[in-house]
Amino acid sequence: MSFKISVINGPNLNLLGRREPETYGIMTLKELEDELRALGEKRGAELHFSQANSEGAIIDAVQEAGAWADGILINPGAYTHYSYAIRDALAAVGVPAVEVHLSNTLARESFRHTSVIAPVCMGQIMGFGWRSYLLGLEGLLMMLGEEE
Amino acid sequence: MSFKISVINGPNLNLLGRREPETYGIMTLKELEDELRALGEKRGAELHFSQANSEGAIIDAVQEAGAWADGILINPGAYTHYSYAIRDALAAVGVPAVEVHLSNTLARESFRHTSVIAPVCMGQIMGFGWRSYLLGLEGLLMMLGEEE
Amino acid sequence: MSFKISVINGPNLNLLGRREPETYGIMTLKELEDELRALGEKRGAELHFSQANSEGAIIDAVQEAGAWADGILINPGAYTHYSYAIRDALAAVGVPAVEVHLSNTLARESFRHTSVIAPVCMGQIMGFGWRSYLLGLEGLLMMLGEEE
Amino acid sequence: MSFKISVINGPNLNLLGRREPETYGIMTLKELEDELRALGEKRGAELHFSQANSEGAIIDAVQEAGAWADGILINPGAYTHYSYAIRDALAAVGVPAVEVHLSNTLARESFRHTSVIAPVCMGQIMGFGWRSYLLGLEGLLMMLGEEE
Amino acid sequence: MSFKISVINGPNLNLLGRREPETYGIMTLKELEDELRALGEKRGAELHFSQANSEGAIIDAVQEAGAWADGILINPGAYTHYSYAIRDALAAVGVPAVEVHLSNTLARESFRHTSVIAPVCMGQIMGFGWRSYLLGLEGLLMMLGEEE
Amino acid sequence: MSFKISVINGPNLNLLGRREPETYGIMTLKELEDELRALGEKRGAELHFSQANSEGAIIDAVQEAGAWADGILINPGAYTHYSYAIRDALAAVGVPAVEVHLSNTLARESFRHTSVIAPVCMGQIMGFGWRSYLLGLEGLLMMLGEEE
Amino acid sequence: MSFKISVINGPNLNLLGRREPETYGIMTLKELEDELRALGEKRGAELHFSQANSEGAIIDAVQEAGAWADGILINPGAYTHYSYAIRDALAAVGVPAVEVHLSNTLARESFRHTSVIAPVCMGQIMGFGWRSYLLGLEGLLMMLGEEE
Amino acid sequence: MSFKISVINGPNLNLLGRREPETYGIMTLKELEDELRALGEKRGAELHFSQANSEGAIIDAVQEAGAWADGILINPGAYTHYSYAIRDALAAVGVPAVEVHLSNTLARESFRHTSVIAPVCMGQIMGFGWRSYLLGLEGLLMMLGEEE
Amino acid sequence: MSFKISVINGPNLNLLGRREPETYGIMTLKELEDELRALGEKRGAELHFSQANSEGAIIDAVQEAGAWADGILINPGAYTHYSYAIRDALAAVGVPAVEVHLSNTLARESFRHTSVIAPVCMGQIMGFGWRSYLLGLEGLLMMLGEEE
Amino acid sequence: MSFKISVINGPNLNLLGRREPETYGIMTLKELEDELRALGEKRGAELHFSQANSEGAIIDAVQEAGAWADGILINPGAYTHYSYAIRDALAAVGVPAVEVHLSNTLARESFRHTSVIAPVCMGQIMGFGWRSYLLGLEGLLMMLGEEE
Amino acid sequence: MSFKISVINGPNLNLLGRREPETYGIMTLKELEDELRALGEKRGAELHFSQANSEGAIIDAVQEAGAWADGILINPGAYTHYSYAIRDALAAVGVPAVEVHLSNTLARESFRHTSVIAPVCMGQIMGFGWRSYLLGLEGLLMMLGEEE
Amino acid sequence: MSFKISVINGPNLNLLGRREPETYGIMTLKELEDELRALGEKRGAELHFSQANSEGAIIDAVQEAGAWADGILINPGAYTHYSYAIRDALAAVGVPAVEVHLSNTLARESFRHTSVIAPVCMGQIMGFGWRSYLLGLEGLLMMLGEEE
Repeated sequence: MSFKISVINGPNLNLLGRREPETYGIMTLKELEDELRALGEKRGAELHFSQANSEGAIIDAVQEAGAWADGILINPGAYTHYSYAIRDALAAVGVPAVEVHLSNTLARESFRHTSVIAPVCMGQIMGFGWRSYLLGLEGLLMMLGEEE
Repeated sequence: MSFKISVINGPNLNLLGRREPETYGIMTLKELEDELRALGEKRGAELHFSQANSEGAIIDAVQEAGAWADGILINPGAYTHYSYAIRDALAAVGVPAVEVHLSNTLARESFRHTSVIAPVCMGQIMGFGWRSYLLGLEGLLMMLGEEE
Repeated sequence: MSFKISVINGPNLNLLGRREPETYGIMTLKELEDELRALGEKRGAELHFSQANSEGAIIDAVQEAGAWADGILINPGAYTHYSYAIRDALAAVGVPAVEVHLSNTLARESFRHTSVIAPVCMGQIMGFGWRSYLLGLEGLLMMLGEEE
Repeated sequence: MSFKISVINGPNLNLLGRREPETYGIMTLKELEDELRALGEKRGAELHFSQANSEGAIIDAVQEAGAWADGILINPGAYTHYSYAIRDALAAVGVPAVEVHLSNTLARESFRHTSVIAPVCMGQIMGFGWRSYLLGLEGLLMMLGEEE
Repeated sequence: MSFKISVINGPNLNLLGRREPETYGIMTLKELEDELRALGEKRGAELHFSQANSEGAIIDAVQEAGAWADGILINPGAYTHYSYAIRDALAAVGVPAVEVHLSNTLARESFRHTSVIAPVCMGQIMGFGWRSYLLGLEGLLMMLGEEE
Repeated sequence: MSFKISVINGPNLNLLGRREPETYGIMTLKELEDELRALGEKRGAELHFSQANSEGAIIDAVQEAGAWADGILINPGAYTHYSYAIRDALAAVGVPAVEVHLSNTLARESFRHTSVIAPVCMGQIMGFGWRSYLLGLEGLLMMLGEEE
Repeated sequence: MSFKISVINGPNLNLLGRREPETYGIMTLKELEDELRALGEKRGAELHFSQANSEGAIIDAVQEAGAWADGILINPGAYTHYSYAIRDALAAVGVPAVEVHLSNTLARESFRHTSVIAPVCMGQIMGFGWRSYLLGLEGLLMMLGEEE
Repeated sequence: MSFKISVINGPNLNLLGRREPETYGIMTLKELEDELRALGEKRGAELHFSQANSEGAIIDAVQEAGAWADGILINPGAYTHYSYAIRDALAAVGVPAVEVHLSNTLARESFRHTSVIAPVCMGQIMGFGWRSYLLGLEGLLMMLGEEE
Repeated sequence: MSFKISVINGPNLNLLGRREPETYGIMTLKELEDELRALGEKRGAELHFSQANSEGAIIDAVQEAGAWADGILINPGAYTHYSYAIRDALAAVGVPAVEVHLSNTLARESFRHTSVIAPVCMGQIMGFGWRSYLLGLEGLLMMLGEEE
Repeated sequence: MSFKISVINGPNLNLLGRREPETYGIMTLKELEDELRALGEKRGAELHFSQANSEGAIIDAVQEAGAWADGILINPGAYTHYSYAIRDALAAVGVPAVEVHLSNTLARESFRHTSVIAPVCMGQIMGFGWRSYLLGLEGLLMMLGEEE
Repeated sequence: MSFKISVINGPNLNLLGRREPETYGIMTLKELEDELRALGEKRGAELHFSQANSEGAIIDAVQEAGAWADGILINPGAYTHYSYAIRDALAAVGVPAVEVHLSNTLARESFRHTSVIAPVCMGQIMGFGWRSYLLGLEGLLMMLGEEE
Repeated sequence: MSFKISVINGPNLNLLGRREPETYGIMTLKELEDELRALGEKRGAELHFSQANSEGAIIDAVQEAGAWADGILINPGAYTHYSYAIRDALAAVGVPAVEVHLSNTLARESFRHTSVIAPVCMGQIMGFGWRSYLLGLEGLLMMLGEEE
């Protein structure tokens, strides 16, 4: 069976690969999406991509995914730490979601140690750079594909 | 005299009636607005409705209300708990406002126990489901209609 | 159908209308009860009134209401902020209750920002002066009158 | 040499001069921008102005400045106190920035005592009304013009 | 030797057995007192019972026990968590006291995790339902009966 | 001119002189009241005394004083640390009040370091044993007798 | 019916009776176990005893009890205050457990006021010296012997 | 018998009577000292006065008082809230001390609600303006004059 | 190239599959290790397994891995939340490590929201049940296999 | 018109230019004062300079400025974070003051994120190195020169 | 007289000299023990050495020292920050102990700023690398050798 | 080689030996300095002594030591707990410093558990009475004498 996945990237991730490469790596968002698409095809999953700097636009994306997606792969960027509105959107649509982060946020500033969004996600993966997304997609598809 | 009221709904309230009915009830936002409009007509008040997932769009709506409205009825959704920017907008326009919530937020997760917006409102009503809006409108009109 | 409502006022509310009118208005408790009674009659509800300065007497009143009342309208005054004993009484009797406040407590001293009682109530209304009670009674009767 | 500066104003600053003059003064945003432009010309600097109520739009403005600006003069309004997303944008683009405020935020409500954005700025100026912007521009140009 | 014990029950314990049986069991206060009296007789102890919803009345009961009792068995109900006045009464009369609770308060809401009264008691027993009282009486009598 | 003063003692102060003399001294409440009466007579003041263990009864006493007293001398005992209801009563009646304590509460357990009542009093005196009351009465009469 | 009980003692309890007798009494662990065994026989219960200083060994003991015991009587010593691993073990094996302490830990240093283990126990008894164990065993057997 | 008292005033009290009269009154430090000296003479006490803005100079004054004074009357000004060094000096010299404040510091900013010095004083008096000193001197002499 | 990986499981994970299956699933630790071994073989990696309930034994395992392993896959169980000693061991040996959890600890009790160990790991994966280990191994091997 | 300004430097600022140049720059205090004097002359202002390591001496300087100065430019050094005594001095003299810092204290250790002095100043400038003083003087003169 | 000293090293100290030399130096535990033994011989003291990664084993070592040692020199490693069980062991055996640390823990991560063990030790020495042990031994022997 | 050491004592240490001997011992500051001088001579070090009650004077002493000393031995007394100004002075002069305390401050009042100064020192020694200074000097000289 083929799953439909919405991949949602939050604020500043459009800058990926061009800024602060020591923290976020040199791969651009476009290249990252290509990697994910390739993996999706291998797994028979259909991926849709979006990125927004605006909290409201991310909520829109989550709500839209609610209408068609089997799963959500989301990197909420800095909204991770305070956007109860995105959390509510994820809880409202009820689509299984996985939160991913490029860096190990627990090893950075203390304000990044908390995720207000993870409690309504199925799981969380962080610290593997762009590979966090690949692992997140694998994990999401495994969970969707089987009854645990 | 006829009062003009701006009814502003925050993030995820467009999903009303379709998601998490055990928490938010089965009435849609459209139906809720119809109920309010009916009550408004009975009370001789003119209502204008808006809903937005974006914090910025809600601030815009508050500022616009500043130009014509006699009162604001607002459910800021999850922004209730952290949007000092919406609070500043309400304080800036100086239009009497009432904050309403469908659920009794004090009986839910601890992050919902706080409202950063209520301190600049005239009053707050919560826990009556969609009826919170009716009561809020009644209260707002009573306060506008009389000198206390 | 006719509902029986117990209206319970907490400490210092017997001084209503005579003290600190800038905060609490000029209506006396007697006049407020008359307003409520009038509204009750209009709605076909039977109201019983009590006021006490003592925490224990308020618990007694709540327990008594448990024997006959369909709903409780309560302004616990300053006990709002620390009386877990009143909270337990409300939880124990299981009668639907609405908490009301004359002033917007979230706009006053920080010790007033918390209600330990609201979590066991159906809803909370504050900031409309004596009208908070009218709205609270309306809300309580609406909730009792319908299955939500 | 001529520096290019992006002047970014956050939520509610479009109301400048028309609301709460006792806190924010009577000069409008337009007039403030004219004052800044005049000073910029005197100093041989080129200024670009933007204002937005939306967090996402401010992040966009910061990212765009990353493409052409030598410096950023920013008043994040209430986002100052919680927008880690704007902070990340400023850190990502790496353009020297100065945070300015009309009022002395340390003398106001306690939630305004904190800036999550200042740690990634070069400096901060507050409390001089619209003159805070003039001083901020002076300071920014001084820092850009010399090697310290 | 025969010990005289004052058994003091706090707010809402008069409702025992009739309300919230899933938390507090189905035994009434009367039946509980009968069980205790039977155990007291078996152990040659004389028991006196009181229950009050009022903090002041509980203080009165503690002070009276100070005049004749060899030990106090007390369930302060919700006052456990904030009544420094009852604590002071117990400290003032200096009669050995044991605090008991029906439920395991450490497994309930966080406001119940603290006892301001236990520090002036000899011991504390919780979580055994009405049997907590039996164990408390046994423990109190053992401690009174022996020099440890 | 002759001032009328209400002297209000809170919980456990009826035990004065008989319990914990190392902390509270050996003078009984009766003897303390005699000392105060004597001083009152010397200063031409008329004193009325009351003592209660119940928070509600203390509120009653404060409200009654509101009807006839020129000043209130109050030792709220342990209620000092949490009775916002007594605080509200004092604020409501608006009679100048002085808070006194036998012991230096700042040198005892940390829960005694705070007074929620002092902020609505004119002044506070602690640590002089029964003499705290004499000093409190002197201070109260001085303040009433002169315009400062 | 005969119940099988695992009695588990944590760190430093092997020193019982030989050290700090003013806090912990003069009875040795061996004597305490004899007392418990005698009571067990009287009640028809079979007791197994263990003591360990190592957190891991206590977890092993809890897990082993999971294979055969009807109840656990545990004094986790200082691990009470921080061993989430022992807590998890108790939760995992699901055997009814009672936590006991020799001293009244709420009357000692503040780090002893908390138990991370009690929330997964049925009840807690403290402050009766070695008798706490007897009461704990009685309570455990009563609870096992009856359906509450 | 004649007592020798050291009256020590802390930072900014040299400005008394000339600045912020709405908070501190119109009496100068010189006049206040004259009032105290008069009272001292009436009570047969010998007073020595000092004032310093420097924390070190106040410690010197306390240490010197240790050599000759029977009592210390001290208003540590803003050092009240953080000078553990003055506290240590008072504890070291062991001379009975009384802390006084012109204003009721518990009714002002929250940083003034704490005294790190009072725990090593005999008592504390605040809120009676310059009369706080008179009451403090009376209290100090009473305590010195009698064995309590 | 073939990597050598040490897979270390902490307290209570030996109970896997037999206890609390609703939280931890029905797969046993043995089966989980088989799954991991199979994946390891597919990826050309050599795995070594250990499990211990004792904090010290886990530190030993980490130190031993320091002598031969290219990577560590660790589920520290409840030690995650407080074992600074395991953290120090991981930091000391300097072998790249990945922390995995079966459940989404951010959606459980608040004491589980913190990891003191993750800050010295490369990444963290949680919430995918036993699949968290597979994803963790994949991620670890990807990171070891490439220079990022 | 010519303004008279008191420039007050706090502890360790006499070391300027000679120590920790990476944080504080290479300009000495003498050179900084020369720059300020030059700017003062250009603006027609008269400047007086002082520096002290002692909190008391800084309070003296503030009090003296109260007698003649139109404005105060102050860098309180580390006293910024805890000297309520300097704050009180500034509040007492009532001369408009501007707080300046060489470094961006919000980007340094957390104890430097707070200023107890800024709340009684007109404004605050930080992060521009020695230029902070120039900007501070400009700002102070602008504010003095105009009615805002 | 010859003193017998137990030198106890906690978790990860067996790695000394081989790992993180920039923090802990290049001397191995074996070499450190040789240095201490040499000093011990010079001072006529007999030393016994142990090291363990397990909290329980360290408690065992402390308890054993209780049977023969005159003093304990202990570096509890990371257990310093949370092992109340080791603290209890030290308090129970009552042998004078000195806590030592290689690094200045107050200059490292905030979780290392606290020692739950030091309050039951005689003294603490940190920051001198392996010399901390020499100083600790000297201090311990001085204290044992003299009556202070 | 001969090292030059500045020994700086803070507030109230001039009272050493004469006050609170149970806490601080009976040796005077003079005698302590003699002991240190003797040890210094034995080690070929030259010592300079100072003591001050004033925070500013201690900063002066630290700054002066910056001009000639190879090391600083400092007991900041109560300033240890709040003087960020002394901390800044030590950081500014960059001379290696050792902080010493007579008593074990971690075993005293909680406000003494923190040192704001130690983070900029090389090490800290406490709890050995006057011998803490000897150990501190030894440690300082060892560290200066060798490259670690």
